[in-house]
Amino acid sequence: MDSKQIVVAVDAMGGDNAPAQNVLGTVQAAKNAKSNVKFILVGNEEAIESELSGDLPGNVEVKHAPEVIEMKDHPVKAIKKKPNSSLAVAAKMVKEGQADALVSAGNTGAATAAGLLIIGRIKGIDRPAIAAMFPTDKGFSFILDVGANADCKPDNLVEFAKMGDIYVRQIKGIERPTISLLNIGEESSKGNLLTTKAYELLEGAGLNFQGNIEGRDLPLGTVDIIVCDGFTGNITLKLIEGVAAAILRTIKTGVSKTLRGRLGAILALPGLRELRESLDPDTYGGSPLLGIDGVVIIAHGSSTPKAISNAVLAAAFAVEQKVVEEIKSKVV
Amino acid sequence: MDSKQIVVAVDAMGGDNAPAQNVLGTVQAAKNAKSNVKFILVGNEEAIESELSGDLPGNVEVKHAPEVIEMKDHPVKAIKKKPNSSLAVAAKMVKEGQADALVSAGNTGAATAAGLLIIGRIKGIDRPAIAAMFPTDKGFSFILDVGANADCKPDNLVEFAKMGDIYVRQIKGIERPTISLLNIGEESSKGNLLTTKAYELLEGAGLNFQGNIEGRDLPLGTVDIIVCDGFTGNITLKLIEGVAAAILRTIKTGVSKTLRGRLGAILALPGLRELRESLDPDTYGGSPLLGIDGVVIIAHGSSTPKAISNAVLAAAFAVEQKVVEEIKSKVV
Repeated sequence: MDSKQIVVAVDAMGGDNAPAQNVLGTVQAAKNAKSNVKFILVGNEEAIESELSGDLPGNVEVKHAPEVIEMKDHPVKAIKKKPNSSLAVAAKMVKEGQADALVSAGNTGAATAAGLLIIGRIKGIDRPAIAAMFPTDKGFSFILDVGANADCKPDNLVEFAKMGDIYVRQIKGIERPTISLLNIGEESSKGNLLTTKAYELLEGAGLNFQGNIEGRDLPLGTVDIIVCDGFTGNITLKLIEGVAAAILRTIKTGVSKTLRGRLGAILALPGLRELRESLDPDTYGGSPLLGIDGVVIIAHGSSTPKAISNAVLAAAFAVEQKVVEEIKSKVV
Repeated sequence: MDSKQIVVAVDAMGGDNAPAQNVLGTVQAAKNAKSNVKFILVGNEEAIESELSGDLPGNVEVKHAPEVIEMKDHPVKAIKKKPNSSLAVAAKMVKEGQADALVSAGNTGAATAAGLLIIGRIKGIDRPAIAAMFPTDKGFSFILDVGANADCKPDNLVEFAKMGDIYVRQIKGIERPTISLLNIGEESSKGNLLTTKAYELLEGAGLNFQGNIEGRDLPLGTVDIIVCDGFTGNITLKLIEGVAAAILRTIKTGVSKTLRGRLGAILALPGLRELRESLDPDTYGGSPLLGIDGVVIIAHGSSTPKAISNAVLAAAFAVEQKVVEEIKSKVV
């Protein structure tokens, strides 16, 4: 493999609308990718080809994998029992150096397990974490962990902060990203056993630590990175999504009760559309599983082709920006 | 005290705009209260009287208390060091049977401490919990604990569920309230150590337990009561508030960029106003601290007079509906 070439393996069979979403998204991305980037669609060859309207672009290949991991499958068992699944084969390509990055919109637990069990964690990293983007007044911030670790120790949160710091530095080009701890009060004494201890450790970790942030202030976008355990992060991320969707529903119902309201809504539509777009997870593509010895991007199961396109391009960019190498040299 | 008379002690000095918000709110409530309800404004007599435009209504009294617990005071220390504070005096009135309920918009931690240390918990209740209302597609649901217990054991969550069940039953008149556990997946196997164990216990608790609910689904209003530890609940509640406020800001900015958008917004205004009202914590008044041997309602620091009016009427209703007696006889 040419040292400058970047290869992204796409789990073509993962996701609610697989393989269509993955095939269309990857083909779309291939048109916009740099010349040194190549994509490999891993999955059932026949199913993949039936989604193509014409020939494959020159920078997209197909690698056959006969098995499929379903959304309902048990993550760890599925990885072990289905070694020829699209996800496991794609992960093995990263492990063996045939690919630099893995992107999957399938079963999130299975994608995490593929990262941990097949590709493996970076030596010295205790707990890999999923970092997700969420919309704020200032654009978006990152939050991690959002689900790889339901139970955490204070040390884990420091490791998350360090990995998030590297990721945001490399991807967004921010020199000293600001970091806060998600907590239930602003003072250092506030919190549960986990966060009060983590606060102390974060203060001494050499990061641009800004102290605690409360749930109410997350949407303000005052910091680049929010650190928390994977249980809290998962609930936070899904709640942002749920509340946003609920409010858009309420607006729709509320204003459409009267003719005046309906007319107003039509006029205000472009502004509202912008809002909906900023709240749409598809805009962000996917979430990196940091701490794995290879780039792993986990996308939403319901990803549209646009989301997949964003996710596979983000994967290529993370390889180009040497996120894994930086975590190896600076975190552990 | 007449056995049928209900006395609500109001911490007149607690809150960002105290005593004005409390005095105005209580006087407003007094006009709408049932004839057997009496309110006592506890605090600096002079300060309270200076907020009154005329005479006190016949069902409102003032009880002087010279000290004030500030928002920045340490909750437990403040209760001990300021025994003549409006909060401590009001709590003592409940302890000594001169009042049936305490309402405070002051320092939440101090109000919780006053409940625990002065009034005391119901014998057999391990951990009192704060139950809060949040808006949903179907009206609102209750979530507890939202901050009294940052670290919880599985048993605590079952106790919260039982207290929430009684509260909703008595206050909303729902025979068998539906209850879900806030978690990071729908299956019983999902979650952290706390929630996986709590799930098991909740299944055997004789409640109308509906299983796990994810953050994304909270706004749907599919269940009456959501149970979680106080750390998760506090972040959840504040996040709902924060995301709602952020979206309303975005709508305002987004639509006001163009003349067309501004016109649309003006036309849609009544619908949006309804939305803002449904998202306004003032509409709900206050949150009960359940498990205390007396009704304790904690209101938002920034409560308007309307919020205080709702909170003190809710306190009187909780006494009338015998919430404390029901918890005593059915939970422990």
